Amino acid sequence: MSDTLSPEPKGAAAGDADEPAKPLRIGLAGLGTVGCGLIDLINRNGDLIARRAGRRFAVSAVSARNRHQRRDVDVSPYPWRDNPLDIADPADVDVVVELIGGADGPALAIARAALSRGLPLVTANKALIAHHGAELATLAESTGTSLHFEAGVAGGIPIVKTLKEGLAANRIDGFKGILNGTANFILTLMEETGSTFEAALAKAQEEGYAEADPSFDIDGVDAAHKTAILTSLAFGVAPDMGQLPVEGIRAVSHVDIRYARELGYRIKLLGLARMTEAGLDQRVQACLIPTDATLAKVGGVSNAIQIHGNFAGPTLVEGLGAGAGPTASAVAADLIDVARGQGGSTFSQPAKDFANVAMLAAEARRGAFYVRLRVTDRTGVMAQVATAMRDGEVSMERMIQGTPEADGSVHMIITTHETSEAQMQTVIDRFKALDTVLEEPCVLRIEHS
Amino acid sequence: MSDTLSPEPKGAAAGDADEPAKPLRIGLAGLGTVGCGLIDLINRNGDLIARRAGRRFAVSAVSARNRHQRRDVDVSPYPWRDNPLDIADPADVDVVVELIGGADGPALAIARAALSRGLPLVTANKALIAHHGAELATLAESTGTSLHFEAGVAGGIPIVKTLKEGLAANRIDGFKGILNGTANFILTLMEETGSTFEAALAKAQEEGYAEADPSFDIDGVDAAHKTAILTSLAFGVAPDMGQLPVEGIRAVSHVDIRYARELGYRIKLLGLARMTEAGLDQRVQACLIPTDATLAKVGGVSNAIQIHGNFAGPTLVEGLGAGAGPTASAVAADLIDVARGQGGSTFSQPAKDFANVAMLAAEARRGAFYVRLRVTDRTGVMAQVATAMRDGEVSMERMIQGTPEADGSVHMIITTHETSEAQMQTVIDRFKALDTVLEEPCVLRIEHS
Repeated sequence: MSDTLSPEPKGAAAGDADEPAKPLRIGLAGLGTVGCGLIDLINRNGDLIARRAGRRFAVSAVSARNRHQRRDVDVSPYPWRDNPLDIADPADVDVVVELIGGADGPALAIARAALSRGLPLVTANKALIAHHGAELATLAESTGTSLHFEAGVAGGIPIVKTLKEGLAANRIDGFKGILNGTANFILTLMEETGSTFEAALAKAQEEGYAEADPSFDIDGVDAAHKTAILTSLAFGVAPDMGQLPVEGIRAVSHVDIRYARELGYRIKLLGLARMTEAGLDQRVQACLIPTDATLAKVGGVSNAIQIHGNFAGPTLVEGLGAGAGPTASAVAADLIDVARGQGGSTFSQPAKDFANVAMLAAEARRGAFYVRLRVTDRTGVMAQVATAMRDGEVSMERMIQGTPEADGSVHMIITTHETSEAQMQTVIDRFKALDTVLEEPCVLRIEHS
Repeated sequence: MSDTLSPEPKGAAAGDADEPAKPLRIGLAGLGTVGCGLIDLINRNGDLIARRAGRRFAVSAVSARNRHQRRDVDVSPYPWRDNPLDIADPADVDVVVELIGGADGPALAIARAALSRGLPLVTANKALIAHHGAELATLAESTGTSLHFEAGVAGGIPIVKTLKEGLAANRIDGFKGILNGTANFILTLMEETGSTFEAALAKAQEEGYAEADPSFDIDGVDAAHKTAILTSLAFGVAPDMGQLPVEGIRAVSHVDIRYARELGYRIKLLGLARMTEAGLDQRVQACLIPTDATLAKVGGVSNAIQIHGNFAGPTLVEGLGAGAGPTASAVAADLIDVARGQGGSTFSQPAKDFANVAMLAAEARRGAFYVRLRVTDRTGVMAQVATAMRDGEVSMERMIQGTPEADGSVHMIITTHETSEAQMQTVIDRFKALDTVLEEPCVLRIEHS
């Protein structure tokens, strides 16, 4: 720590009434939308932050790839560093904010630099934490500093704090969340307008909700980063992308959305984890949920997470998951914690105490399924399908046969009672072997609880 | 602090890897439902709490009115104190938990005793904080200790932490909440079954959701305590019950619920506060909210709070507002904060910095209204009512005339466009002066946003 700071414990709130507390000197790496949003927030809400945090925020070093890029805020008042690593200098800053992005590269380098020098790190970088969270937490604990990432999960919703602190006295039985606003926008638009996936994606891109390369959002990668982090917080395990099955929404057709509605469901991209007797069930998947379920009502770019604690019962948090304002709000909340001296463990507990929890084998997972087949419109097909299910010992719950199409094919929609992934896969293989099944079946999970 | 504690700052997490941290010694005053729930929680979740808090919880002194009462948990292992004030002894305990209840009496005495002796206090007592929060916060700050009351507002929902920390970087524009599960249960039942207020109240009492004397819940007092606390957290003012207009749900008839539904609304008991140009609008009232509003979907005994921050945007938190489990969860979360050394200000900022915010004069509040009149079923009455509104310069939005009743009276329902309370009151006075208006008009506010 620099000698301009009071001789209190690192990061402690300096709150003597007689002597104004020293400002919290912030080093900011990354001046994109969120970085500029943070500067805007500090400019506009600076007085109330000083009152609440016990000290003012002072941006004392900034860095970005391009110094002269047009930005929404004037960054010229802040000392510039050409090399982002130079920001992590305890002589100049009390805390480093990493808003560069990306799991590796300069983001990882600056995170390591800050933490190894004993500087607290605040980041909005979910990929960094999902991939390197355990290493960085261990590093922070070894130098006695802290690592904060509220902005990495669900933007303005204080879900990290809710799990780490608000529900800290509970055994968490599970959580289930809509964690990607882009995917939810697309699915909501498909449901509301009947448009195809491609048209809804184009609209999302047009409105600035989806990137030119949308794969992180629509293939579930972004939701998976967040799910891995929430799983760590909820179950005391290291974040581990390698143990997390991930599916996106590319395979969801407007036809599925229509049939799902007919059956009383909406399709949502969920990130979830729950403890079962056979291990931790953790995944990101487009799932059917009942139309009257709480998460079914979360539309557009909103995020929402349901958590079940063994004493608190069910809790829901909902809000804006992305954008400059919500993300800056979360970054600044972490900075207020740093200013107040509230560090604590990176995850719910020290990294050295991460549990070794068995994962539920994918094929052992049990649940109900939705299957859409495109079949030849011919007598006897239904008997073939029913036979395949009987032989595979999967019990059919409901069946819908669509209107025959011009090419002589027809959609057959099946929902099942609870079965295992393994049994369902056997039946899917039998379906695929039928010459009347014309294309790869669409298989989605139904989440009732 | 006792000499059995490490020489760290008061309440700091003792987390040296080589030496196990000293347990957090808890003094517990009050062994009713919540007190027993807390002991149950500590028994069942003790290991994970130790992992997350960095030290174990140890109940080291207990007190209650009746030592030999039958309880759900065995309290005989814990050192008993006949006088609850004896619990607040730094030689025996590191933190005092007050679960006695009541704004004054022993609860206030033990709170003062603990804080004046530098012991952190955790309480679930909303009345205590709503009435004496400013005094107790000042006391805590003067002795360098901390005061925690997460369990006082909305049970298992970490709303205090969300406002104090999660959204701390935001100027809060307003909040709006369903803060009393009993009132919400009654209103939900009236809507779902068409039952009268009296029948729904009896059912709530039968199911244990309402007390024998239900006035705290149905007259809005409980919701008002919570609203006063949330207003303090959101706007940096001292909690002040004297500045908070409070109405309950006794005046809401099943007839109102039916007409509200016909008009596209549900009736909910709301606690709300919002900053307006003319001052802080803060109140507890049964209001009509649009059927598709988020809070309209919160049924039964659930609690939910919507908050709007100037950077985070809208955030919603929802969960169980009462009961042993959720309340114990919140008390234990506060204890984990104490164990981790996370004290901070009692409210969002030090009590000495409470703002002096002008309250919106009741008559200046603007909004839309719902009015139900019982009138004589006679030609010309509608013209009288319309004339009264025109003369009072209140614009009618919609009007419904009900089916005439056997006694020759009929319900006339009116909704208005935005007007002021003062103007509306003028019109209500004109209505009451009409000899065709047979009883006191029912006047409810419509909350659109």
